[in-house]
Amino acid sequence: MTQRYRLTIEYNGSDYAGWQRQENGRPQTIQGEIEKAVKAFSGQDTTVQSSGRTDAGVHAYGQIAHVDLEDLTRPMQPFEIAKAINAHLYPQPICILSAEPAPDDFHARFSAKNKRYIYRILNRQAFPAIERGFVWHIRRPLDVPAMQEAAQVLLGHHDFTTFRDSECQAQNPMRTLDRLDVSAREYDTGGGIEIRIAAEAKSFLHHMVRNLVGTLTLVGEGKWSAADVTEALEAKDRCAGGPTAPAAGLFLERVDYE
Amino acid sequence: MTQRYRLTIEYNGSDYAGWQRQENGRPQTIQGEIEKAVKAFSGQDTTVQSSGRTDAGVHAYGQIAHVDLEDLTRPMQPFEIAKAINAHLYPQPICILSAEPAPDDFHARFSAKNKRYIYRILNRQAFPAIERGFVWHIRRPLDVPAMQEAAQVLLGHHDFTTFRDSECQAQNPMRTLDRLDVSAREYDTGGGIEIRIAAEAKSFLHHMVRNLVGTLTLVGEGKWSAADVTEALEAKDRCAGGPTAPAAGLFLERVDYE
Repeated sequence: MTQRYRLTIEYNGSDYAGWQRQENGRPQTIQGEIEKAVKAFSGQDTTVQSSGRTDAGVHAYGQIAHVDLEDLTRPMQPFEIAKAINAHLYPQPICILSAEPAPDDFHARFSAKNKRYIYRILNRQAFPAIERGFVWHIRRPLDVPAMQEAAQVLLGHHDFTTFRDSECQAQNPMRTLDRLDVSAREYDTGGGIEIRIAAEAKSFLHHMVRNLVGTLTLVGEGKWSAADVTEALEAKDRCAGGPTAPAAGLFLERVDYE
Repeated sequence: MTQRYRLTIEYNGSDYAGWQRQENGRPQTIQGEIEKAVKAFSGQDTTVQSSGRTDAGVHAYGQIAHVDLEDLTRPMQPFEIAKAINAHLYPQPICILSAEPAPDDFHARFSAKNKRYIYRILNRQAFPAIERGFVWHIRRPLDVPAMQEAAQVLLGHHDFTTFRDSECQAQNPMRTLDRLDVSAREYDTGGGIEIRIAAEAKSFLHHMVRNLVGTLTLVGEGKWSAADVTEALEAKDRCAGGPTAPAAGLFLERVDYE
């Protein structure tokens, strides 16, 4: 008997070559390390299928994956399975927050209804001492209301070719962006600002969130207007878009299913 | 001419032997590294005097210190001084958020009117993947309202001998605790809770915040009542108090002056 499990996973992607397993296990990837840990506790070779790949350096508070396990030598509760995988992952910065039995037709990627990413920018003069690797550090003060206004022109169903990586393998560049919210809060006692950009869609193209963020920073710097963003979107050309924001600031926050 | 500067400092204390400079510069300390950076840009031997020492592994979002600089070979604006020190600190996880001219009678320690610490507890099964070194990981679910209630019996002017380290060098164990608030928020999509304990006083004894937090976790686990906390306080005996919480969860958030 095979039982499918849904895993909720947190990871610090700083030192990994992204989600996707590589040949020979080098460089290390999140998927590869979890599959090794599953093997170590169960003896089984499995594929841990996530809701989608994340790039090198990208983090997750709530990546979702599924894995099929054959009968174990002794019956285990789902929480014991999470604990057993974690025992083999530790001290790597990857952990299983929960394991839950799932029906055979549950698919972490194809059943996903909504994904939410958070992108964090630290906007201040001094480099980040505490959150290095978890924020994009931008010294020049950004105009957050202008970024928020420009973000709204990107909402809806569009051809997002301008914001997809040239190596993106998706057949269809059409996506529906449901949310792109830019907000600011005080970060520290030195006057720093943290800007958070929350992006939601059923699915995203390769580098799409990072390319959207990079473009919004041009607006924040006063170089681009909201009209320039519309024009870039309509150009359907990656060269018309802004730069790709660094991986470090990006977190896959959650994936929702019906 | 000597000019005093007030520095606001952020640091990740994980890999340092605390604030206070050590003989020969080993192991590395926050104070020692900042003094080296000041020397590197100015050529001057200085003492960087903080609002108070922090222990090994303790972090700061807003430590305050003062330093006296003789005339520089070229006049520099305060923001340039912060930038010059940072250039020599980088890539260490210590940065000067701001440098401001201060009167000669400003003293980072003796002029301080209020200090605020934050202690962070990650309360969930899975170990921390993203915030390792920045939280105390406790698996057993804690009763936050009970902790908050017990915390309130500690407020006010008391002999805090029960909560001071046996090596504390303060002559007087009397302190006035102005705030000790325990609050919880959702941490992740796996059902985790982050508990934050905010502590404010004009000054604290050695290990006082960590000993207060360790004692409150006994309440959170249901082992102690608020009355037990009162009894411990009244015992004026370190042996009557709870354990010392790990350094990793502690942040000096801010120091206020008149």
